[in-house]
Amino acid sequence: MNFLHIRSLILCYLLVLSVSSGNKMAEGKTALVLIADGSEEMEAVISIDVLRRAGLHVTVGLVSGTAGIATCGKGVKLAGDVSFAEAESLGPYDVVVVPGGMGGSNIMAADSGVKKLLSEQYASGRKVAAICAAPALVLTAAGVGEGKRVTCYPSMESHFGDKYTYVAGEKVVVDGNLITSQGPGTAFDFALKVAEEIVGAEKSKAVAKAMLL
Amino acid sequence: MNFLHIRSLILCYLLVLSVSSGNKMAEGKTALVLIADGSEEMEAVISIDVLRRAGLHVTVGLVSGTAGIATCGKGVKLAGDVSFAEAESLGPYDVVVVPGGMGGSNIMAADSGVKKLLSEQYASGRKVAAICAAPALVLTAAGVGEGKRVTCYPSMESHFGDKYTYVAGEKVVVDGNLITSQGPGTAFDFALKVAEEIVGAEKSKAVAKAMLL
Repeated sequence: MNFLHIRSLILCYLLVLSVSSGNKMAEGKTALVLIADGSEEMEAVISIDVLRRAGLHVTVGLVSGTAGIATCGKGVKLAGDVSFAEAESLGPYDVVVVPGGMGGSNIMAADSGVKKLLSEQYASGRKVAAICAAPALVLTAAGVGEGKRVTCYPSMESHFGDKYTYVAGEKVVVDGNLITSQGPGTAFDFALKVAEEIVGAEKSKAVAKAMLL
Repeated sequence: MNFLHIRSLILCYLLVLSVSSGNKMAEGKTALVLIADGSEEMEAVISIDVLRRAGLHVTVGLVSGTAGIATCGKGVKLAGDVSFAEAESLGPYDVVVVPGGMGGSNIMAADSGVKKLLSEQYASGRKVAAICAAPALVLTAAGVGEGKRVTCYPSMESHFGDKYTYVAGEKVVVDGNLITSQGPGTAFDFALKVAEEIVGAEKSKAVAKAMLL
């Protein structure tokens, strides 16, 4: 076997290693997206869809609804994959995503099960992601992310009080294992940043390109 | 009654006229958004949500699904407001919106009821809007918009053949009563343009601003 053959073999081995490790990054990675009556439907659906495009196994957990369906803030009727209780038993997840919408966020902020799940998710070092009204209402109620840099729907920043550092003018803010974002118009940036944090920038960029963003 | 009083009365009358005509533009305007198994969920939900924010009465018509629910292309389970047959009976609509997604578009392209509805909607001069795979698959199958400038998901333009003028590099293309767009990443632009065409640029811009776009 001459030098050229050996070099080709090594290159081939490195290529296989790189492809399999690239796959492994997405393989087995999981997300839980919570929905409730009054959740913002675009924020929920963009998160679910984009994270599935990025190769994550996404579970949609229904916190409140009728006959398995959440009636979202603008009337879109979205079915959960599982109930919240079942979603809890299927965890832990690499990331838990909380969409906004005043109605849904108020329900989640008052739900002791949701607060416990988010609190444990965060304390364990796994990622928590929230957008729009959810950082201001749900994370504060759960005591998640105190001391961190955060953003939310701009009119709601007063909810953070002095326990958080509110960041204005950034679509998505990442601080440690906390990812927050502003609203429906930043939902693609939010979901792609969550994907990037879980499976890497290359995969996230490929998803964005295929979506024509 | 002196001149000042008369002038105030006239101004007041004009103000009332302008406000009521402004309201009338959004009031009573209707949209039908079609969904089917395999529809692109972000394109469907962004269209429904944005048009409702713009004041349209939006009906979600289920072309195919199980127990009233379409399982979309990335697994999001979306309930129709009504069946396609019921949606037909509730028309006509100011605009019929067709989301993309290969699975959903193929179902709609093969559905004689959908093709008849789109054909009549278009021939009557009312608006037809389609995005992603839908212009290439559904509009061509229904013979809607022949001779018009159109766009679609870039890899699918060959479906237009020589009966349409394919436009590359524009997120949304409006030609007469036909509105077409490229894919998930252009879905906000698409929905906002449909809103603009129905209720005017001012309202559409206000919706975009509130969404933080």
